[in-house]
Amino acid sequence: MEQQSRLAGTVRPGGRTARVRAAVLEATQDELVECGFHGLNMDRVAARAGVGKTTVYRRWTNPAGLVADLMSELADISAPHADTGGIEGDLLANARNVLSAVTDPRLGATFQAVIAAATSDEEAAAALNAFYGRRLRDWAPVVESAVGRGELPRGTDALEVLRAVSAPLYYRLLVTREPLDEQTADRAARAALEAARAGAFTRS
Amino acid sequence: MEQQSRLAGTVRPGGRTARVRAAVLEATQDELVECGFHGLNMDRVAARAGVGKTTVYRRWTNPAGLVADLMSELADISAPHADTGGIEGDLLANARNVLSAVTDPRLGATFQAVIAAATSDEEAAAALNAFYGRRLRDWAPVVESAVGRGELPRGTDALEVLRAVSAPLYYRLLVTREPLDEQTADRAARAALEAARAGAFTRS
Repeated sequence: MEQQSRLAGTVRPGGRTARVRAAVLEATQDELVECGFHGLNMDRVAARAGVGKTTVYRRWTNPAGLVADLMSELADISAPHADTGGIEGDLLANARNVLSAVTDPRLGATFQAVIAAATSDEEAAAALNAFYGRRLRDWAPVVESAVGRGELPRGTDALEVLRAVSAPLYYRLLVTREPLDEQTADRAARAALEAARAGAFTRS
Repeated sequence: MEQQSRLAGTVRPGGRTARVRAAVLEATQDELVECGFHGLNMDRVAARAGVGKTTVYRRWTNPAGLVADLMSELADISAPHADTGGIEGDLLANARNVLSAVTDPRLGATFQAVIAAATSDEEAAAALNAFYGRRLRDWAPVVESAVGRGELPRGTDALEVLRAVSAPLYYRLLVTREPLDEQTADRAARAALEAARAGAFTRS
């Protein structure tokens, strides 16, 4: 498991402000998992976190503000990219990392709640876009290194390769509602690799 | 546009029962687009369709029953698979077909509403699974024919190739919330084709 599924203990140490943020984000994630985005209530988050309501309203404004900060924290604590020395191993590690995250009960439910919210809420959509944009950019060096080593064609679009690894997993998870396993993850990595080798992701 | 976005006039002719069903499914889709799955109300659907409430409850039982029947009708009226004579043209047609469907305002909103509902409702998830299972099987012959013509390796899993074409489009639509265009669709088709040619989708 490369992505932490609990925030507790993972938020960087700090003073009272950092402790308040950690408690509020933990409570936000609890509420999101239990009630979904449309059930996310500022007062209940404050009560659950043991923090005054006015603090929560002043700092996060609304439920979308809580979700945006939670997604930002989840991106901060996500594992850095793999470095196995070869693109095949690195993309397999990326696929397994995505699989672990989406099949983790707490983290998977968090992502699904925000993805569901984003279908009808622009701020949730922006938070998702920022989270996945960061995760894709975090992993881009594995593709760039592979191009440098001559494993992939020059001009390969790193983000496109990484989107291709993740996409089949999210497609089964959200759209076809089919089961996901390691074979699914490994096949997604291999298919993305073969397509990249053939030049399907070079910039036009 | 290969997928009809409006049911009106597309439901097969028939007697009163068929007309009632057409009106109720049209109203269901209207309500789904406007209010989402959790705002779908049997009484309002009945009023909008100009049909008695008892008929709607007796025949569809609950909102999930309405959605399941709507998705079944959308699958029925979807265009049959392409037959361009070659796998490259057929997969491009498939990608463009998916692009048209998800970017159509009414049809795209319908899918997004059901996908959002499926994250927390088992019946909505089952309706989605049935719809996409049918659409994937409807298109499987394009891959099977390509294997027969020697364009793709023997043992290629047709559904896996088709999932690979759709997945990057839904990933951008739902997860990263990035724009979709014809270039995205064409690249998804080409990447799936290259991966299939390299044997990434053969059954193990």
